[in-house]
Amino acid sequence: MEKETIFTKIRDGIIPSNKLYEDELCFVILDINPIKKGHILVISNKPYTDISECPDDVISHLIKIAKMFDLKLREKLKCDGTNILINNGSSSGQEIPHIHIHVIPRYKNDGIKFGFSHEKYEENEITKFKEMLI
Amino acid sequence: MEKETIFTKIRDGIIPSNKLYEDELCFVILDINPIKKGHILVISNKPYTDISECPDDVISHLIKIAKMFDLKLREKLKCDGTNILINNGSSSGQEIPHIHIHVIPRYKNDGIKFGFSHEKYEENEITKFKEMLI
Repeated sequence: MEKETIFTKIRDGIIPSNKLYEDELCFVILDINPIKKGHILVISNKPYTDISECPDDVISHLIKIAKMFDLKLREKLKCDGTNILINNGSSSGQEIPHIHIHVIPRYKNDGIKFGFSHEKYEENEITKFKEMLI
Repeated sequence: MEKETIFTKIRDGIIPSNKLYEDELCFVILDINPIKKGHILVISNKPYTDISECPDDVISHLIKIAKMFDLKLREKLKCDGTNILINNGSSSGQEIPHIHIHVIPRYKNDGIKFGFSHEKYEENEITKFKEMLI
């Protein structure tokens, strides 16, 4: 039996939404809690938890639809660019365990900042990471 | 003539790097200024500025390689998940005008936070955005 999530309920119309697009693999809604107005979500129809579970053909399709909306946001909202973000796993900030891609319109000097700090590799440490990941 | 970027120089070996992977469409390096150690970049061989310029077959391929590294980071670094991020355009925080996908390993309570604030739609405003974007 399929896992039920807020997104399967939105997909099925049980929860109302502002659906912008749908096809055989995904649908697109406006995020009601936008980082910037016009922030949209590209959501897989099937409730794969995150990218690690999502078949290659599905993730390929989702990113093409994200690109389509990047272009649409630039055209219609006159934004200068976008952030495209996929949070994978609850430790990453993913709130709903059903894969979705955020597309966030961005404007020059719009005041949005990533609050990320950075780490520093110790001497030779990066080589160890390379050996692990190659 | 091809645009020259720091990434075309890394691709060509003019600037040394920690290359983890390469194929006919892309290559993967460790980010030397990581948000979390093991943070990698999936970079298009050709210097498309951002997703808006990147052909569908290329962006589809890049996201599949990002998924491959999501799985590898989970396996080798024992991270719990990842953030996958594409900044498109200088207003979005993109620093190098040559498309690249960040894959950032994440761990439970790792202290990384997105500093994003949120906007609020006024009454009926979301409907106007829906009409613009549908």
